[in-house]
Amino acid sequence: MTQPAFILIRPQMGENIGGAARAMWNFGLDRMRITSPRDGWPNPKADAMASGAGRLLDEAQIFDSTDAALADCDFVFATTARHRDLTKPVMTPERAMAHTRNLIAEGKKVGVMFGPERAGLENEDIARANAIISVPVNPEFASLNLAQCVLLTAYEWGQDAHDMPAESMEMAKTEFAPQHEVAKLAEHYEERLDQAGFFFPETKAESMKLNLRNFWSRMPMTRVDVQTLHGMLRQMVRWKERGD
Amino acid sequence: MTQPAFILIRPQMGENIGGAARAMWNFGLDRMRITSPRDGWPNPKADAMASGAGRLLDEAQIFDSTDAALADCDFVFATTARHRDLTKPVMTPERAMAHTRNLIAEGKKVGVMFGPERAGLENEDIARANAIISVPVNPEFASLNLAQCVLLTAYEWGQDAHDMPAESMEMAKTEFAPQHEVAKLAEHYEERLDQAGFFFPETKAESMKLNLRNFWSRMPMTRVDVQTLHGMLRQMVRWKERGD
Repeated sequence: MTQPAFILIRPQMGENIGGAARAMWNFGLDRMRITSPRDGWPNPKADAMASGAGRLLDEAQIFDSTDAALADCDFVFATTARHRDLTKPVMTPERAMAHTRNLIAEGKKVGVMFGPERAGLENEDIARANAIISVPVNPEFASLNLAQCVLLTAYEWGQDAHDMPAESMEMAKTEFAPQHEVAKLAEHYEERLDQAGFFFPETKAESMKLNLRNFWSRMPMTRVDVQTLHGMLRQMVRWKERGD
Repeated sequence: MTQPAFILIRPQMGENIGGAARAMWNFGLDRMRITSPRDGWPNPKADAMASGAGRLLDEAQIFDSTDAALADCDFVFATTARHRDLTKPVMTPERAMAHTRNLIAEGKKVGVMFGPERAGLENEDIARANAIISVPVNPEFASLNLAQCVLLTAYEWGQDAHDMPAESMEMAKTEFAPQHEVAKLAEHYEERLDQAGFFFPETKAESMKLNLRNFWSRMPMTRVDVQTLHGMLRQMVRWKERGD
């Protein structure tokens, strides 16, 4: 098992089971287990909601008790919003999924339990877990539904799995302008602006030129940007020369 | 402004506007802006869906263009799933919200644009943004709806805002047992088990005792757990003494 199983304990509405399947597959998770779904199984409303993630429902393992669903797991998380008066480690989804990656790397099987919509997991279920996952919500408004709780947990699993850098630059068929092209652009503008009488009065000309050169260097310009700026200036000169 | 404004650009379904409001308020965000909602404003379906977060809709600012909605922002993010062929920094929600906290600490106003359900933001809108937020989804199944995209972005904002430790221990009216209580427990068991003839054969007794002492120290026991374990042993002795 190279990913955690997400285990829906006694889910009530088919729509939420389908939504949970979508949320899992959005982040590459496809091992779903379900205990005692209220409206039986398969569930047409779950299938309708799952759309592109329907395969997860076809392959979902159905159990009739929490114990049976957890039987092969080495480590189990319980997701819950409320404090439960059970002595137990509590982790954010981020920390819990980092821990899950470590456990899986050691060859362990990990399960994450999600409770039924109305009241969440029973203390009986939670007592079977090694640790609790609690989403740090606004204490004034903590109402996350089942599919949302699955989404946030799956998102934290996906954070590492998809290997996206925290920050990158999307380049539209171009690259950043090398220094010599920026320097040429600066010269072009300085020369033409000088002819146009922009650097006035004389006493301020040097500092105006310095600031302008600094401006060009400070801009993160692509080669396309540099060509566009050259073209703008040439067109202004042509317009001036046409004299209309 | 101590939080970013979330700006829904031309949202279509009232349910999604209401869902976005709930998702924002789940993580303590309450500054919503909306441009040109398709079905007019106010929207009864949005109100019904928002339930506990209805205040955000009552206080939402409505604009008739992207420019107007962004006018007072110093830094603007555009959320988008697809590559857009625009040269622009791309950040994960996590990095983007960390950057937002820094900008706000400098007194800047930050806006985050979310596109309409069907096709997302137009390139016209994205060109107005300073950077792109892209959720690292499963490339095979990248369908996040509007409220889910708002939820994940708001969640990353809330990561820091609510000050929840990544990991903590929920203690059910007890505390961890101090070392001397664990030592007493180990003695109690060792003594009784010795009487019972558990440490057999003689040649292995020392290593069995060592392993048992190590076991007690390795368990993260509360004071209540220690009392329970003493009680269990006393009861076994009583039962033996009753001889029935």
